[in-house]
Amino acid sequence: MHYNYRKSFASDNNSIVHPKVMEALERVNSGHYLSYGEDPITSKVEERFREIFGPSSETFFVFSGTAANLTGLSALMKPYNAVICPDSAHIKVDECGAVERFSGSSLLTVKTADGKLRPHMLDPYLDHIGVEHSPQPSVISITQSTELGTVYTIEELKALCSYAHSKGLLVHMDGARLANAAASLDCSLRAMTTDVGVDLLSFGGSKNGLMVGEAVVFTRGDLAEGFKYIRKQAGQLASKMRYIAAQFDALLTDDLWLKNAKQANKMASLLAEELKKTPGIRITRPVEANALFVNMPAEAASRLMETYPFYLMNKETGEYRWMTSFDMVDQDIYDFVKAIKGSLSYKG
Amino acid sequence: MHYNYRKSFASDNNSIVHPKVMEALERVNSGHYLSYGEDPITSKVEERFREIFGPSSETFFVFSGTAANLTGLSALMKPYNAVICPDSAHIKVDECGAVERFSGSSLLTVKTADGKLRPHMLDPYLDHIGVEHSPQPSVISITQSTELGTVYTIEELKALCSYAHSKGLLVHMDGARLANAAASLDCSLRAMTTDVGVDLLSFGGSKNGLMVGEAVVFTRGDLAEGFKYIRKQAGQLASKMRYIAAQFDALLTDDLWLKNAKQANKMASLLAEELKKTPGIRITRPVEANALFVNMPAEAASRLMETYPFYLMNKETGEYRWMTSFDMVDQDIYDFVKAIKGSLSYKG
Amino acid sequence: MHYNYRKSFASDNNSIVHPKVMEALERVNSGHYLSYGEDPITSKVEERFREIFGPSSETFFVFSGTAANLTGLSALMKPYNAVICPDSAHIKVDECGAVERFSGSSLLTVKTADGKLRPHMLDPYLDHIGVEHSPQPSVISITQSTELGTVYTIEELKALCSYAHSKGLLVHMDGARLANAAASLDCSLRAMTTDVGVDLLSFGGSKNGLMVGEAVVFTRGDLAEGFKYIRKQAGQLASKMRYIAAQFDALLTDDLWLKNAKQANKMASLLAEELKKTPGIRITRPVEANALFVNMPAEAASRLMETYPFYLMNKETGEYRWMTSFDMVDQDIYDFVKAIKGSLSYKG
Amino acid sequence: MHYNYRKSFASDNNSIVHPKVMEALERVNSGHYLSYGEDPITSKVEERFREIFGPSSETFFVFSGTAANLTGLSALMKPYNAVICPDSAHIKVDECGAVERFSGSSLLTVKTADGKLRPHMLDPYLDHIGVEHSPQPSVISITQSTELGTVYTIEELKALCSYAHSKGLLVHMDGARLANAAASLDCSLRAMTTDVGVDLLSFGGSKNGLMVGEAVVFTRGDLAEGFKYIRKQAGQLASKMRYIAAQFDALLTDDLWLKNAKQANKMASLLAEELKKTPGIRITRPVEANALFVNMPAEAASRLMETYPFYLMNKETGEYRWMTSFDMVDQDIYDFVKAIKGSLSYKG
Repeated sequence: MHYNYRKSFASDNNSIVHPKVMEALERVNSGHYLSYGEDPITSKVEERFREIFGPSSETFFVFSGTAANLTGLSALMKPYNAVICPDSAHIKVDECGAVERFSGSSLLTVKTADGKLRPHMLDPYLDHIGVEHSPQPSVISITQSTELGTVYTIEELKALCSYAHSKGLLVHMDGARLANAAASLDCSLRAMTTDVGVDLLSFGGSKNGLMVGEAVVFTRGDLAEGFKYIRKQAGQLASKMRYIAAQFDALLTDDLWLKNAKQANKMASLLAEELKKTPGIRITRPVEANALFVNMPAEAASRLMETYPFYLMNKETGEYRWMTSFDMVDQDIYDFVKAIKGSLSYKG
Repeated sequence: MHYNYRKSFASDNNSIVHPKVMEALERVNSGHYLSYGEDPITSKVEERFREIFGPSSETFFVFSGTAANLTGLSALMKPYNAVICPDSAHIKVDECGAVERFSGSSLLTVKTADGKLRPHMLDPYLDHIGVEHSPQPSVISITQSTELGTVYTIEELKALCSYAHSKGLLVHMDGARLANAAASLDCSLRAMTTDVGVDLLSFGGSKNGLMVGEAVVFTRGDLAEGFKYIRKQAGQLASKMRYIAAQFDALLTDDLWLKNAKQANKMASLLAEELKKTPGIRITRPVEANALFVNMPAEAASRLMETYPFYLMNKETGEYRWMTSFDMVDQDIYDFVKAIKGSLSYKG
Repeated sequence: MHYNYRKSFASDNNSIVHPKVMEALERVNSGHYLSYGEDPITSKVEERFREIFGPSSETFFVFSGTAANLTGLSALMKPYNAVICPDSAHIKVDECGAVERFSGSSLLTVKTADGKLRPHMLDPYLDHIGVEHSPQPSVISITQSTELGTVYTIEELKALCSYAHSKGLLVHMDGARLANAAASLDCSLRAMTTDVGVDLLSFGGSKNGLMVGEAVVFTRGDLAEGFKYIRKQAGQLASKMRYIAAQFDALLTDDLWLKNAKQANKMASLLAEELKKTPGIRITRPVEANALFVNMPAEAASRLMETYPFYLMNKETGEYRWMTSFDMVDQDIYDFVKAIKGSLSYKG
Repeated sequence: MHYNYRKSFASDNNSIVHPKVMEALERVNSGHYLSYGEDPITSKVEERFREIFGPSSETFFVFSGTAANLTGLSALMKPYNAVICPDSAHIKVDECGAVERFSGSSLLTVKTADGKLRPHMLDPYLDHIGVEHSPQPSVISITQSTELGTVYTIEELKALCSYAHSKGLLVHMDGARLANAAASLDCSLRAMTTDVGVDLLSFGGSKNGLMVGEAVVFTRGDLAEGFKYIRKQAGQLASKMRYIAAQFDALLTDDLWLKNAKQANKMASLLAEELKKTPGIRITRPVEANALFVNMPAEAASRLMETYPFYLMNKETGEYRWMTSFDMVDQDIYDFVKAIKGSLSYKG
């Protein structure tokens, strides 16, 4: 794959590091500090997370989204436990079995139409609680915004968390794109997490302007017991932690996270708008955050991929996915739309 | 622990990121690139590693030293295998059981005087090869420079690798401070690794000027089969990989790695020289890289720790450890020596 | 649950140990033998297995069916691999996540109508081979006879194994009830396994007259490399192995395994025949081995369970399962039918 | 290895199944019972264990001693925990890394002269409690009688358990030969376990007259929470459980366990007595249970092994081990002594 000056719609992690994040890194790059998070920069940012997610929350930084999921979920499970999740969940299809390997536990999947888990979908697995032959569900895992570009409403989250809790299950939210969901719902980070009953959050940074770093947030601090050992044992404890913390500091300052997410979402809306006028393209799912799913002729898609790489997400339905990023501007969308049209009209 | 302007002798990972590394990060921070290493920056640096470690070597970036060890060793072991290592090995005492958890295998330790494994020390474990009741050794792991500040000579490495190979064992080198060893031996990186028979190397960056990033180097590419899955499954695959690669690019350009290591080692020599003139301090081990081990009165140590935090490494022998860093200058050493003397002469 | 003289239709593992197996145990209970399988009785039975499953096969005894599955599959997988299996597979729903925990790998499930995996069902997972984000399928697992009481034909097995092999996948057969399948198809054990391309077999004993013991059969001996360590590491190596081997000796002598299986299957046929004449009972699946699935009024089922315990296997479809055993006789079936009728006609 | 009529001194698991155990198996071999321990025979024996080990104890049957250790210890550890044990512990040297693989945790070993852990030996590991870089000790594991044939006194056990508990550690006892220790100390099983503070016991059966079966005894029932899932997930849940329970029933009836153990111990004493009169043999360790460790000329040992197989246990010290069994009689000892003398006097 060769470098090119076009923006990429393959994934929002093809984007740059936000300049304010780079500045924050420069700012902390002076003087010696104790390693492994025993530095004042990390302490300050941990405190900032407590302000956002509530005073009893506990936050830990790790390196990647997969790492946030595998370490966080391991803290809520014994090896004989299981996670219930949609069959489209990143932990099921895109993490090479990371949760199973590290935690020793199982994933129990549910078929969904739109990537959203709903209360009644848990029922088939609940009958097995207490039966030694079955993996024992202890957590549900949902993604906000979902892998299919949809966004759970506050009400949906409340109902789901409440049902899960009533059945003795904890709730994990994979928030690789939580900021995009907040921008979509126009609510605070807390309103979608702590306030609705989410117990554990993987809070993503790298798709929204960071270089490297994700946060594992236990909204109930008691659930974080022993987590520091899990993080270390997973090789996820940064020695020069201040450089992870500083990135989050920048992201959480002056609502940079929100501005970035809004811009990414806005670009998706603009793209959707343009595509509605484009014959040959069918948008297959609601555009609620920064992802678009489309049907288009396979040959046109192949041609387009030569200059704009992207993925066929579902062979069966023929759906392609396009992601927009915080560092795109209107012209990037227009350029892409032009290329799409070109690929559609091409006569070989 | 509070921030202070003094340099820290607690660990070389208390240091800053080298300015040239920061510049490299700025340089790649423009334009979209495919993620997960499918970008030209990463390809270029992988190629650079092949130039250094040999054409059949294969290199993969991960986030931390513990991660390099746990993922690399997992590639060389089945769960019923075991690593033979000194009982001072970082993988045994400082990684919270990471290798055991991730690989399912065991560590078999050997008592050493100086942190160095020697051929005959393997013998007690070799008798059990083929016996189903015993964990089956498949790898030995050594650290260069060692956790006790000593450096294996080229001859020692050759003899050890040769013996291990003759017994069907592979050789892993934990090179968190490989650069310091190269500076000490005045040899190339390859002369201590590929050329002596090291099969797998954890090549450290963060203690020598990087922000975050370590490299897993298989000097024999065939051993790397399947490693990409291991890295992903461990949550160690960076999405914005170019920012890890760029750091190594800077480190490997114009021998920055060597300049940094030489400076760190020089600071240790200077400190040792000064301390030899200091009554009340006894240097307990040869100073061959950037670590000093000393005995000093416990009360003086406690006083000194108030301004200069550092660790008691061995309660039994009363040995404290001081590490020097690439970003120290002569004055930092003189300041520290002054503080040491002050702590020794203090009358409460 | 209290002891009762009625035969149980809850599971075929509610049965006794066959008298000939008891005799075999008595026969070897004299004199000292080396433990862990280094005895002549074990050697002889291992040889017997080679006669049955082919000269290049290798057989190992373990304690339970779950153990056979977890150890055998572990031998064919690295932790980043995955097994493709029907969503009704015992390894998925009835082993508490044993395979995932012990092997570190994942299960990828396929929805089936009748418990049988068919070639094209593998396709959705094959696209991900080579992609580091996805668990890498290396084995398919099928059950013969299936958890739904159906039996793969020889042709079905050939086609499936051939397709799997053409895609680089190995084939595991969970043969907890392999004998019942052989009795149903009227073929040899080998005709359904080695000859059609099965690579690994869990050969069940305890549901067909043994006390304790299952066999892990690698039809290709090269796949068994290292398995002796896996068995030991799993706590599945019997010290007094002769007592496991002797049971299999009895089972394989004078076709006891086949006689037992035929009797169990015959009892299922008889039960099915009787139930066809019974209003209020609907047999929901073909009766091809020793399992019956039925619909019946929930109240009648509850009443019946008071004397004859059995399980509701599928809440959604309301299907109950009845298993017949080798140690049942015609009268046992008549007694049970009478009880069924009683439960149906009861007016509370 | 060929069958022979001589008794074996290689291990006490070379022995037969006690006739009373065989009778018990015959006795329960009639009628159908629910599987997986839901039968009245198992309930009765579980109750019997409660009488022996105290009303709050909980007992679970598994198949092997390695299994008892790996499942029991897993219940007391998270993967970041560690067991402290003597470096001669069976879990360290003879179980192929079973505990590490299944639990994900580490073993921290202590060098001992006689196989016995003593309170102060724990100290080096206690400093690391709370430090995220180190595996966190949560259990100590001791063996009674030890792998070196010694027996902890009641006072030693009390002191050790008390010290461990005061440091927040639980105590596991590997009781593969607990009966031999009880016979040696002339005390009850409870006096060495529940009463001194042992939290978890692997209670061995197969070396003392059973065919297959070990018991995992939690003297504090609260520690058994979730254990039923662990047992199942490990493939250690017997389907036809009554046949395991019945064996223990026999063993615990009329003190069969004690009679057997006394006989084995008596045979060791007799052998020791005879050997004291035999020039060329040096008994190297106190004979406190049913093991003898000796030095003898290597050539004589080799000759002797041709008819009486046994093991060199320590290459460095040249120690061979001889185990006596419950099913030996005086003549067996005399025969063996005669063979020993023959091997010593042989002139080739």
